[in-house]
Amino acid sequence: MSTIHRKVSEIARDIAEMKIRGAGNIARHAAQALVTTARNSKAKKPSDLLADLESATKLLLRTRPTAVSLPNSIRYVMSRAHTGHEQHLKLKALRKLIIDTGNTFIQNSAQAVGQIGEIGARRIEDGDSIMTHCNSAAATAIFTTAFKQGKSFNVFVCETRPRYQGRITAQELSQAGIPTSLIVDSAAHSFMTKMDKAIVGADTIAANGAVVNKIGTSMVALAAHESRVLFFVAAETYKFSPETMLGQLVHIEERDTSEVISNKERTAMPHLIVRNPAFDITPPHHIDLIITEKGIISPQAAITIIQQEFGSTRTDELMKYQTKPRD
Amino acid sequence: MSTIHRKVSEIARDIAEMKIRGAGNIARHAAQALVTTARNSKAKKPSDLLADLESATKLLLRTRPTAVSLPNSIRYVMSRAHTGHEQHLKLKALRKLIIDTGNTFIQNSAQAVGQIGEIGARRIEDGDSIMTHCNSAAATAIFTTAFKQGKSFNVFVCETRPRYQGRITAQELSQAGIPTSLIVDSAAHSFMTKMDKAIVGADTIAANGAVVNKIGTSMVALAAHESRVLFFVAAETYKFSPETMLGQLVHIEERDTSEVISNKERTAMPHLIVRNPAFDITPPHHIDLIITEKGIISPQAAITIIQQEFGSTRTDELMKYQTKPRD
Amino acid sequence: MSTIHRKVSEIARDIAEMKIRGAGNIARHAAQALVTTARNSKAKKPSDLLADLESATKLLLRTRPTAVSLPNSIRYVMSRAHTGHEQHLKLKALRKLIIDTGNTFIQNSAQAVGQIGEIGARRIEDGDSIMTHCNSAAATAIFTTAFKQGKSFNVFVCETRPRYQGRITAQELSQAGIPTSLIVDSAAHSFMTKMDKAIVGADTIAANGAVVNKIGTSMVALAAHESRVLFFVAAETYKFSPETMLGQLVHIEERDTSEVISNKERTAMPHLIVRNPAFDITPPHHIDLIITEKGIISPQAAITIIQQEFGSTRTDELMKYQTKPRD
Amino acid sequence: MSTIHRKVSEIARDIAEMKIRGAGNIARHAAQALVTTARNSKAKKPSDLLADLESATKLLLRTRPTAVSLPNSIRYVMSRAHTGHEQHLKLKALRKLIIDTGNTFIQNSAQAVGQIGEIGARRIEDGDSIMTHCNSAAATAIFTTAFKQGKSFNVFVCETRPRYQGRITAQELSQAGIPTSLIVDSAAHSFMTKMDKAIVGADTIAANGAVVNKIGTSMVALAAHESRVLFFVAAETYKFSPETMLGQLVHIEERDTSEVISNKERTAMPHLIVRNPAFDITPPHHIDLIITEKGIISPQAAITIIQQEFGSTRTDELMKYQTKPRD
Amino acid sequence: MSTIHRKVSEIARDIAEMKIRGAGNIARHAAQALVTTARNSKAKKPSDLLADLESATKLLLRTRPTAVSLPNSIRYVMSRAHTGHEQHLKLKALRKLIIDTGNTFIQNSAQAVGQIGEIGARRIEDGDSIMTHCNSAAATAIFTTAFKQGKSFNVFVCETRPRYQGRITAQELSQAGIPTSLIVDSAAHSFMTKMDKAIVGADTIAANGAVVNKIGTSMVALAAHESRVLFFVAAETYKFSPETMLGQLVHIEERDTSEVISNKERTAMPHLIVRNPAFDITPPHHIDLIITEKGIISPQAAITIIQQEFGSTRTDELMKYQTKPRD
Amino acid sequence: MSTIHRKVSEIARDIAEMKIRGAGNIARHAAQALVTTARNSKAKKPSDLLADLESATKLLLRTRPTAVSLPNSIRYVMSRAHTGHEQHLKLKALRKLIIDTGNTFIQNSAQAVGQIGEIGARRIEDGDSIMTHCNSAAATAIFTTAFKQGKSFNVFVCETRPRYQGRITAQELSQAGIPTSLIVDSAAHSFMTKMDKAIVGADTIAANGAVVNKIGTSMVALAAHESRVLFFVAAETYKFSPETMLGQLVHIEERDTSEVISNKERTAMPHLIVRNPAFDITPPHHIDLIITEKGIISPQAAITIIQQEFGSTRTDELMKYQTKPRD
Repeated sequence: MSTIHRKVSEIARDIAEMKIRGAGNIARHAAQALVTTARNSKAKKPSDLLADLESATKLLLRTRPTAVSLPNSIRYVMSRAHTGHEQHLKLKALRKLIIDTGNTFIQNSAQAVGQIGEIGARRIEDGDSIMTHCNSAAATAIFTTAFKQGKSFNVFVCETRPRYQGRITAQELSQAGIPTSLIVDSAAHSFMTKMDKAIVGADTIAANGAVVNKIGTSMVALAAHESRVLFFVAAETYKFSPETMLGQLVHIEERDTSEVISNKERTAMPHLIVRNPAFDITPPHHIDLIITEKGIISPQAAITIIQQEFGSTRTDELMKYQTKPRD
Repeated sequence: MSTIHRKVSEIARDIAEMKIRGAGNIARHAAQALVTTARNSKAKKPSDLLADLESATKLLLRTRPTAVSLPNSIRYVMSRAHTGHEQHLKLKALRKLIIDTGNTFIQNSAQAVGQIGEIGARRIEDGDSIMTHCNSAAATAIFTTAFKQGKSFNVFVCETRPRYQGRITAQELSQAGIPTSLIVDSAAHSFMTKMDKAIVGADTIAANGAVVNKIGTSMVALAAHESRVLFFVAAETYKFSPETMLGQLVHIEERDTSEVISNKERTAMPHLIVRNPAFDITPPHHIDLIITEKGIISPQAAITIIQQEFGSTRTDELMKYQTKPRD
Repeated sequence: MSTIHRKVSEIARDIAEMKIRGAGNIARHAAQALVTTARNSKAKKPSDLLADLESATKLLLRTRPTAVSLPNSIRYVMSRAHTGHEQHLKLKALRKLIIDTGNTFIQNSAQAVGQIGEIGARRIEDGDSIMTHCNSAAATAIFTTAFKQGKSFNVFVCETRPRYQGRITAQELSQAGIPTSLIVDSAAHSFMTKMDKAIVGADTIAANGAVVNKIGTSMVALAAHESRVLFFVAAETYKFSPETMLGQLVHIEERDTSEVISNKERTAMPHLIVRNPAFDITPPHHIDLIITEKGIISPQAAITIIQQEFGSTRTDELMKYQTKPRD
Repeated sequence: MSTIHRKVSEIARDIAEMKIRGAGNIARHAAQALVTTARNSKAKKPSDLLADLESATKLLLRTRPTAVSLPNSIRYVMSRAHTGHEQHLKLKALRKLIIDTGNTFIQNSAQAVGQIGEIGARRIEDGDSIMTHCNSAAATAIFTTAFKQGKSFNVFVCETRPRYQGRITAQELSQAGIPTSLIVDSAAHSFMTKMDKAIVGADTIAANGAVVNKIGTSMVALAAHESRVLFFVAAETYKFSPETMLGQLVHIEERDTSEVISNKERTAMPHLIVRNPAFDITPPHHIDLIITEKGIISPQAAITIIQQEFGSTRTDELMKYQTKPRD
Repeated sequence: MSTIHRKVSEIARDIAEMKIRGAGNIARHAAQALVTTARNSKAKKPSDLLADLESATKLLLRTRPTAVSLPNSIRYVMSRAHTGHEQHLKLKALRKLIIDTGNTFIQNSAQAVGQIGEIGARRIEDGDSIMTHCNSAAATAIFTTAFKQGKSFNVFVCETRPRYQGRITAQELSQAGIPTSLIVDSAAHSFMTKMDKAIVGADTIAANGAVVNKIGTSMVALAAHESRVLFFVAAETYKFSPETMLGQLVHIEERDTSEVISNKERTAMPHLIVRNPAFDITPPHHIDLIITEKGIISPQAAITIIQQEFGSTRTDELMKYQTKPRD
Repeated sequence: MSTIHRKVSEIARDIAEMKIRGAGNIARHAAQALVTTARNSKAKKPSDLLADLESATKLLLRTRPTAVSLPNSIRYVMSRAHTGHEQHLKLKALRKLIIDTGNTFIQNSAQAVGQIGEIGARRIEDGDSIMTHCNSAAATAIFTTAFKQGKSFNVFVCETRPRYQGRITAQELSQAGIPTSLIVDSAAHSFMTKMDKAIVGADTIAANGAVVNKIGTSMVALAAHESRVLFFVAAETYKFSPETMLGQLVHIEERDTSEVISNKERTAMPHLIVRNPAFDITPPHHIDLIITEKGIISPQAAITIIQQEFGSTRTDELMKYQTKPRD
């Protein structure tokens, strides 16, 4: 039987207590926990080393039930570890493979936003008007990279009710010197006819290329599609959800109603229900391209990313490495 | 030469000073001014009576440059007056025609919202979920009429940023006992797939059936169209714009930017422009029906309403009775 | 007080007892009843004559609650009678107007199918493949007229489950010598790509141009639209429903489930519900043209037919002359 | 020269004489024949073993000219056998590879319907109304799996003229306790607006994601697409056709016309042709997802399945292992 | 019996011999011929006057078999003449009515292009890029009127193979000082995404709003529709075809093949056919507006123009006043 | 340090001086240059051999800045060379791998057009009418292969202004005996409704399946899409652009304006600009299939080709092997 290394337990606890936050950051710490486990394992044979890793993954998968990046980092490492084991790697070689793989994931993940910025910036042309919604590090990286390259363009930002994350984007872009316009969300369709592109981030990407992102994203995508404006999604590969390949639906959380209307104001409305879903789903046929750090793909090719990154041809493992409710 | 009756001058002044407000109310007072003019005219022959009326119209058309209902009430009366004159009506008969016509317009206009409520309520069925946007007396009349008839349905109301008129609608409907849900505007597309219909009001309707209404309306219409949900516009006939038949474009006003973001918050955003158009334009092919007090029409048949109500086959008169900037 | 002429009572009874059948036939007999009433009325003044006619209409409207042609024949006559009365026609002239109007309606109605055949046949070209559905006298008239003119074309007939009316059409056309193919309904989309046109009849046409017709019609229309094949509806003007202008919905009857599956076979299916609607609704944007005896119109111009034929600018009368449940 | 093992000849004969039936069953027996060949081969060197297998494949490919699953099972085994040979596997290792590969295919194939049931059931949600067409083991597995999981939903089944396979589905589902509605095929569009999803099986899937299935499937897909209802195809991977990658068209058979109308009834219809294609083709842009036992894919990613399962990057082999007319 | 006035015979001959050319010019001369006939008629009673006019129309209708404007001018006058006769006008009044009506048509027609220029120019906005095709007086009038009003815009002109009429337009606009770009026809779709509007003329407009115009027009319309660019047709009312209401199809002429490729160059191409249709048909759903001198209409409202201008509710007369082959 | 073999320098010079022309030919010579380099390299260890090859690639990539096939042939060889090096191949084995790989590319490339002809010909059916545009060896191969197989079909060729390459195609096809029709480009939409398919070639294919080809291609594709006609692109795999995966846009060159209108004729047009882009971009959703020598793919699966052929999962190498401006 394996014992969990103290450092791994600490990482798991910090993720659970939200001391480690942010999709990329969580993913990198989980990979680090596997590297640490491999490095410190007292296993005498390959199967024992794998058993130690499996123990670590169980602990990690219980920390944060809804994160998509955490199981993906584990799948990235474990699918390669299992393949190595099946190829009869000896203990030392298997340990090295796991450590190298974990470090590769950590490095790739840390560079992902920057690379998306580089790749996406190539698609921005002088004179472009571009709409965005909510606040996405990857989308912002594209804008700032292109701006630093001297390209001349302007961005329309939807305010993103109910929590106004669009204002954060507007501040970031405008302080970077990019000409920026702020509009209410429902004006997106009106202004879309004057846009050349729309670029947003993603929370989760399903196997068929559907994108789960902040409420309103699907409406911006619909307006772009209707106005024949290119719609790009900027997303790190660890946001692709292998579970969806096996039918799993992405859960859409509803947030507190006071974000929409104050409880006080509601007292005058006896039969009123307030609905406040945090996300919506943009179907693949309203998306022109997904920009990842591995390159640009059609949304319909999302499955290619999932298979290449997370070894998802091994469908049995896909369901094993899912997040679980905590004990 | 004619002199303007004192009562007419008062009406014109009250319209100009916004003591008389609301599209229907303005239209009825303008018609009343023509009735008063006809009644008090000292004209000795038909052409003099018409001259007196023309003087009154000139005064009225200068009071409120952007109202669509005001010139329509004048066109309603004057197109019939001119036809009567061409048919060689004698002074007495012409005077009677004008007074009767003015009173008919006043009566029709006063009953319009109620009749739209009756007609539109027939389209609501038990079990319907219906989306609405902003705050429209005609749309609300449909909901409350159907509810009083015992129909069981619920309404989703978009909050209608930036001024939240949707909250007023939510309050009206919920206080009337109708099950009502409030959502942010950008959630309209997400919830649309669960709707059976969408019903909104109108500010102005163009000759080709395009509808000018509160910002966000065209986005709700687009979402309804995409989700194959019926989209109805409830509008009194005096909101149809005969000028658009002759090419005139409907002007879309931009309102104060502080409605979108406080000036204080903007100080941190050096390159930020705020765009705040009050209205948007919904194209006819995204509208299934327009519900008027004269019955239900396809948007493409808008020209039929314009011709029947405002005598617009007389294209010369269409341009004569336009609102003008005040002296 | 008026008394109903014996002949009128007989007509009403024969309609109620379905001795008089078929949309056109019912309409003509109702018009005849009004002519008879006008001819035999003992009225001494115009208003009494109208009162006699109103009594007759009440009797007629109670005979067949769902017919669309019956109230239309009454509206055709009565809207013109009321207009005549408002123009102060004397008794004799009014009586003549009513008799002439009734006879005109009867004559037009009797010739309608033939004229539709003439007009529609002009749209058939040598080499055409044309799909049809169910069994419609007007559609068949188009095919046989064109064939008699020597045009060379072939017709694909959907069998029209559950009652196989398509087989009747197939028999009529094939016996007339027209090359005819019979297919199951669900093959309509497969063969549509090889068609040049699709032509069907109508049960009722709504004010916005939507067409109520035999179940499956909307699917043929959808397939035609998807395959960019022209879709024509052949319909006599008395099938246009003025009530729909005022919001009335067309009721879709569900027929006996044994038409779909025998009761015996159903006994093996414990949780089975059988749904058997007789009609469906084809939206106007899937219809290219409606061919009436008054000419070809866009479906969006349906309101023009309603206003010209049934005087529907008089919205008060529209609702008065509706069919009512029998006493 | 190789000789065919007696057991292989028996399998080939049983397939040809339809004693072995059903796409999956045929495929598994063909794979078994290759395993048997490998096990009993008297080959002295790897190339001789391959020669024995090639002889067996020739025999098998001549048994059933139109089956898609039979050549696929052969391709599955032979593409891996050839790769092994190219990697210079020794005789023993190659034999083992072939036996293991054949057994893997047999096992995967036997579990495929069950796994599709598991994966597809995750997509069914409480309250769903779902349409289906014809009778598909894979689609039925999804419904019954979801129902056993306690999900509450109902299914609308199209009767599927001309052979009414929909009644079989209706009986299976309703006897399983699932609330089931039966409709005529042409009512699919009418009821589609009330559906949340549509799920059907497949006969063959082309390289571009087009689906060949029972006549009427493409019409249900079109109606689902028009009504913005999700359309899923449930299909085992051995139904994907590698030949289509190289341009081969899928042949659509026409069945006996007496299925559509009895020969007796036809005697009255001199110029009548009856068309009775057994299948139709649903284009990929009308399909949202294909549910395979390997997971869910976009139809546009069908080529990924073909390449992974049948080694289709080896285009020369694709055409070699095609079914051929029997000697 | 009536005799044709010498002046009428001269007009007919000049039209036939193409001394009188151009749609508007022909129409005005035909109306003038009727005025002349009415003025010089020796008729003693109204029916004789009408008989004289009918003789003149027969002569005129035989002069130019394919002109749409010629029968329209006749219908304009004759439908009003017949209505006057039915209203029992006396000889003198009827004669005056005919003369006045003819002169009104002549005056309206002469001013039509100018008025279309005025109306259409209101739709051009500063900064617009507008595409046009072929050479149309009405479209050019819109551009030059807007330019004289000081509006700043530019026009993209398709060269309009095979006869390069676009070069004439390019010359007219560029010589007027309007910034003009010339492109090959097949580049229309590429540049359309940068356009705000497209404006073309018309040869004939059908009752359902379909527009027959120079080959390539339907492709520009399709590209505009796809790119969500507004597509306007500028057309005088006498180009609307009442015959199409009664099913008549518009004949599309094929012109000499040497316009496409020289006969010499063709000699090297043994199996080559050259197809050279002069016109194509743009369907109404690809047209946003039709700009006539009577105002702007939806294409679906084309029937309204036909009925108001040419009295087409009198369907019997529609077919009577068709052009006929010359004796 | 490496020295470039004389033969490699000659190849580079011949490419630069356009003695070596044509996408396939250039690609094959570049691969040959690498084979030559590998064969003649004096390297003592694998890394030196790779260094020699890198020197050769640098020279080759500077010869022709806009060719897409040249860097692809280099990527084909070099991605496999690097993989071999990473797998610790010894010098001899690595040299062999490079030579074999280069020769494989040369062979595949030389056979590509023929194989596309074979594959594409399977999609042509008796009775087909097929449209094509410009002049493409791959598309022509499909037509002539199918014709030699005895298939009966005809081809419509757009003349392809401004340089009339369609006439070359018309001559090739008609001289081969295929019934061929020539039309002006703007007639493509008119005739498309009579077509069964459209097949064109490609200049470059982007990672998302968008196709860059001769101006007018996107318009033919749009017309095919609108008319529900299948649109196929025939393209060798070396025309797929891996750079586009990393965001690179394909540059669209504008050619001399005198191709559109002679400079002399332009002198009369003072404000005229002539725009003459050589290519346009067809979006993937207007393309049904891409026919490559490796088989048929959905455009959305373009990335699969890129990854399999050019090792593009190695994104760092993708950008390294780009064409560069010459020293």
